[in-house]
Amino acid sequence: MRGVYCDGVSVSLRRDLPEPCAGPDEVVLRVRRAGICDTDLQLARGYMGYRGVLGHEFVGETESGARVTAEINNFCQVCQVCLSGRSQHCPNRTVLGILGHDGAMAELVTVPRRNLHAIPDGIDDRQAVFIEPLAAAFRITEQVALGPDVRLAVLGDGKLGLLCAWVARLVGARVSLVGRHAEKLAAAGAGIATYLADEAASLARSFDVVVDCTGSSTGLAAALSLVRPCGILVLKTTVAGAYEVNLAPIVIDEVQVIGSRCGPFPRAIDALARRDIDVRPLIGAEFDLDDAEDAFRAAAVRGARKILLHVERD
Amino acid sequence: MRGVYCDGVSVSLRRDLPEPCAGPDEVVLRVRRAGICDTDLQLARGYMGYRGVLGHEFVGETESGARVTAEINNFCQVCQVCLSGRSQHCPNRTVLGILGHDGAMAELVTVPRRNLHAIPDGIDDRQAVFIEPLAAAFRITEQVALGPDVRLAVLGDGKLGLLCAWVARLVGARVSLVGRHAEKLAAAGAGIATYLADEAASLARSFDVVVDCTGSSTGLAAALSLVRPCGILVLKTTVAGAYEVNLAPIVIDEVQVIGSRCGPFPRAIDALARRDIDVRPLIGAEFDLDDAEDAFRAAAVRGARKILLHVERD
Repeated sequence: MRGVYCDGVSVSLRRDLPEPCAGPDEVVLRVRRAGICDTDLQLARGYMGYRGVLGHEFVGETESGARVTAEINNFCQVCQVCLSGRSQHCPNRTVLGILGHDGAMAELVTVPRRNLHAIPDGIDDRQAVFIEPLAAAFRITEQVALGPDVRLAVLGDGKLGLLCAWVARLVGARVSLVGRHAEKLAAAGAGIATYLADEAASLARSFDVVVDCTGSSTGLAAALSLVRPCGILVLKTTVAGAYEVNLAPIVIDEVQVIGSRCGPFPRAIDALARRDIDVRPLIGAEFDLDDAEDAFRAAAVRGARKILLHVERD
Repeated sequence: MRGVYCDGVSVSLRRDLPEPCAGPDEVVLRVRRAGICDTDLQLARGYMGYRGVLGHEFVGETESGARVTAEINNFCQVCQVCLSGRSQHCPNRTVLGILGHDGAMAELVTVPRRNLHAIPDGIDDRQAVFIEPLAAAFRITEQVALGPDVRLAVLGDGKLGLLCAWVARLVGARVSLVGRHAEKLAAAGAGIATYLADEAASLARSFDVVVDCTGSSTGLAAALSLVRPCGILVLKTTVAGAYEVNLAPIVIDEVQVIGSRCGPFPRAIDALARRDIDVRPLIGAEFDLDDAEDAFRAAAVRGARKILLHVERD
């Protein structure tokens, strides 16, 4: 079959991939569409040392024709971590298209049956590709109490930054978005104050919660400058490898830094189905799977909207 | 008067310091004893750019002869931060012997009246010098719920590490202490499991809470290796300036990093008075104020116990 293969140095379209076999409790899905995210770009450069088919944001179809997506962590259910209720962090887990399990940028993908989620008719394929990153944005609401008294800033006007800003606004926080691109800040829409990063000095130490979605090694220092003493800094950015950072402000200002990863799919599906969150401004160009290498180049352009791969044969 | 003066490059005993004048709501104390802590050693090397008399761990005497110590943060009480209940982080604050206010390694010191705490007779001067660092250890109990189900590791077998371990044991946590010195680990006493850092690989990802008291730029990475997914890492270490660190595990394992600084004096005084915590194993040599420069050299010896300055004229 065809699929986008990562060899740890680059990505390429392969036409000779073996069709996957469903393991116990797994199902085979026919993939309809998949999205390219920053993690895919990082994996393509060698992050995590991943070798295999990429893709963890997708819409597929069961044998009976139902449209579905799937959570990406596949856990063992028997280790101490799973039994303690933190299966998302199972040390034996595989992660779809990221760690030890082929992903969804291919004609077929296998996923654990328990990871499946049906996609309501009101959510079209292009929007449904955002379920996984939107769920990651909703993760913040499970970790931090965000009420109407909370002054929250999202740092970074990329796709994840906008999703986090929208989620925070949805749950009632007073949201500011700080970024480097006026045209992307404009996508934030009503109810969100926007600032160019250069103007942010006046905002120093004024937020209860700051979410770092910069994807940059400079994001943490910038976020620390915005958060108030005893405030909370949610870290969404992962940067491969070590980098220089001054952590003394965390101690002196008693800041709480919370790492934040995957989130609740049902919450994301519900928000899209009810039109509480409209991801359409984030949808960029769609490429046929055959043009996947072009698609990856387009996704790597700074400030690109979500690049989609059209996988199904019409 | 005599006092230990820091010029940002070194410390020296001076005999020509002006006697301090009490400001509004301040009292002048005659200093009896002061302790030298790692922060003093860092200040002496230029940390914070401090110029002035050092000393923030001390026992003094009021005009009427009452033995007292004092909290070190002097806040404005009128800014937004103070009014929001986080006066410890007042941006206009001075900090005794650390920031904008002369400290207690001198014959006389001024402190705000509201910062005073009486020292019960059961706590002698040498133990009372530990009230400030012991309060900093108790700060952890205000930030993290530590019950009998909590597996907690303290990383670093220095004085602050031992104080944190004792506090955690006192409130019921299952405490391990990880350090580099067998003889200092031995001071932990009953009820605390001890491990040499070299043996700690087997403890990877097994603690709910890890407290970094290493005072070293390598402490964070070591602490991250010990904490379980979704666990809590309390950061007591401040390292001046930037250093290289890999923060990706914070995001991937969704660790919560909490900076921790000053703590509740009443709690520390109570624990010493009730003999819940016995700091005597941590008390090192005592030097006369006239020999302060020798005292600083002794305090800088790796693994030194608490070096005291005897200030009062007998």
